[in-house]
Amino acid sequence: MSADSGRGTQEGPDYAARRGLLRNLLVENEIDGLLVTDLVNIRYLTGFTGSNAALLVHSWDAAGAEDRTVIATDGRYDTQVAEQVPDLRAEIARAVARRVAELAGEWQFGRLGYESHIVTVDQHRGLVELGTGLDFVATPGLIEQLRMVKDEYEVDRLRAACAVGDEALAALLETGKLRPGRTERQVARDLEWAMFERGAAGIAFETIVAAGANSAIPHHRPTDAVLAGGDFVKIDFGAVVGGYHSDMTRTFVLGEPADWQREVYDLVRAAQRAGREALRPGIPCADVDAAAREVIAAAGHGSLFVHGLGHGVGLRIHEAPGIAKTGTGTLLSGVAVTVEPGVYFPGRGGVRIEDTLVVREGGPELLTNTSKDLTVVG
Amino acid sequence: MSADSGRGTQEGPDYAARRGLLRNLLVENEIDGLLVTDLVNIRYLTGFTGSNAALLVHSWDAAGAEDRTVIATDGRYDTQVAEQVPDLRAEIARAVARRVAELAGEWQFGRLGYESHIVTVDQHRGLVELGTGLDFVATPGLIEQLRMVKDEYEVDRLRAACAVGDEALAALLETGKLRPGRTERQVARDLEWAMFERGAAGIAFETIVAAGANSAIPHHRPTDAVLAGGDFVKIDFGAVVGGYHSDMTRTFVLGEPADWQREVYDLVRAAQRAGREALRPGIPCADVDAAAREVIAAAGHGSLFVHGLGHGVGLRIHEAPGIAKTGTGTLLSGVAVTVEPGVYFPGRGGVRIEDTLVVREGGPELLTNTSKDLTVVG
Repeated sequence: MSADSGRGTQEGPDYAARRGLLRNLLVENEIDGLLVTDLVNIRYLTGFTGSNAALLVHSWDAAGAEDRTVIATDGRYDTQVAEQVPDLRAEIARAVARRVAELAGEWQFGRLGYESHIVTVDQHRGLVELGTGLDFVATPGLIEQLRMVKDEYEVDRLRAACAVGDEALAALLETGKLRPGRTERQVARDLEWAMFERGAAGIAFETIVAAGANSAIPHHRPTDAVLAGGDFVKIDFGAVVGGYHSDMTRTFVLGEPADWQREVYDLVRAAQRAGREALRPGIPCADVDAAAREVIAAAGHGSLFVHGLGHGVGLRIHEAPGIAKTGTGTLLSGVAVTVEPGVYFPGRGGVRIEDTLVVREGGPELLTNTSKDLTVVG
Repeated sequence: MSADSGRGTQEGPDYAARRGLLRNLLVENEIDGLLVTDLVNIRYLTGFTGSNAALLVHSWDAAGAEDRTVIATDGRYDTQVAEQVPDLRAEIARAVARRVAELAGEWQFGRLGYESHIVTVDQHRGLVELGTGLDFVATPGLIEQLRMVKDEYEVDRLRAACAVGDEALAALLETGKLRPGRTERQVARDLEWAMFERGAAGIAFETIVAAGANSAIPHHRPTDAVLAGGDFVKIDFGAVVGGYHSDMTRTFVLGEPADWQREVYDLVRAAQRAGREALRPGIPCADVDAAAREVIAAAGHGSLFVHGLGHGVGLRIHEAPGIAKTGTGTLLSGVAVTVEPGVYFPGRGGVRIEDTLVVREGGPELLTNTSKDLTVVG
């Protein structure tokens, strides 16, 4: 039983089907195979979760594309690769990328794509110098393109990860652990512990708990700063379930909010709603960002929203697509993204509100279910 | 106050001195400057801990090398970079590597080194296509070479991180949390929690708790498997303090050990001692591995020690040097390494014993202080 068990209701992923979709992209890109070295991409295509591997994916072939699709790992993962990837040939080798490149050479693959957005200059030189006779072709982002659209197995895991986040935050509030006198670090640790207790295999990223003036720092690390009455407390966190990451932010006020706090909270909440409501298949990513950004700009605070609106989320906490001014491409049904506008007054305080959602034909599916009403605690 | 406070007694690092040592390497490598994009290397040279940055380090120069040494980050880290890196010019930009490369071009650096072991093929192409007139020179591993030898500030942090590990493991045992009936995951979470309670800013890597036959899997992830009497339980874990990682492994027996368990334990313990005793300035890394490996081979179990003996440890859990059959180079005084031989009987069980040490002239300094006697628990 894996560490990822206990949450999620679907059957396991169909890795062979994912490799089939990839082969269609290999044909489109006129390559005979792909050398995959990114470990998350290898997990996506095979289920292997070890820390060292390379995968060779053969394109469609009369001789049987799967027969010439090979995963290589080292001796530590001998047993694990046999259990997790029973359907592919596995090679045990010290230099894993080298081993599968040599096989591709023996099998005369011809044009072999590689992940030029992942492979370093030194690794590329090493591959070329092997003298395999292969033509190495830079093909960045092919698997990330597939990963952007989640299948129902993946949405189920994302839903479970988001539920862990919702439940952990509710427990934090119910047990009175968010209150004046405690430190940012204490609150962060309690929240993380609550996620583990609810089945998280890990935390999705370093938990942010930012109180008072620290809430104006978008990516603040928890410190020993003590929470005080009147503070904004911004909490940005997530859980990992089955390899999938949740991501949510809520901002609270300790005690009765001041007028400026209500105003900025309501503004960010309205911007976040506009961003969520813009999510639909076919909309350019930059337009989603603009939908939220315009609300903040109209209130005269455009310069205080200093980051993009959101990002794709899945096997990595940050993945395609980027939802930002400079975002390219359009949304598709099944894409999972965050929507997280923020307004930050330096030295004073800031608010961010963030949900994780899945783009759907009939309107986005909200995976984060914690209330976005202004919550007064302490 | 940073999340890393609370452990460690030394003054802060002298970042300018580190940059000075790097400049000597730039001169040796005949480059006019170095483009640094690895975030850990940037932290080492500046103290900046944000998630996006690029650093341009100018070589020695009559006009003042520090004046043309620049860190770039994005708008999220505006405040943070000013606080953490008050002594360098900071640029706020969307494309950070591009921004500092453009500055290097304006300043006519000439030959600009880059981290070819970190920079991807796509990133390199992007830099070349900027048209800066710079000659980009592949210079892998320069900063890693410096990082291998720890200064006393760094050893102090490693010592503190190792102490957190020792104390957390002792607490786990004292509170009876390692016993038959509990699951691998429960034990792992308790141990991690105990590290956080003792000042860890994070865990050094995914904690390994492997019981019974699982202990034969070198890198096993904790599952819901229930610990049983007679099991080996192998626990490999570490804490992060001030950015520095500790790494230790102990293997226990639940109840009275069988003869084969005593034998394999004593064998691994003897091999680990041989590895530790081999640590001295000037010894080839491969010879340290051999010192431990020969003990296991002499007992006829050479094929069951399926990984290298150890690795450097510091700001990353795995860094230079590698202590393995294929390890290159020799140890120097101040290098921090792990020594972690293991013998694994597939399907039956395995033992690994691991300490973190610093190579010193008069013999290695042991940072891991937990007993290596065979400990019977439960």
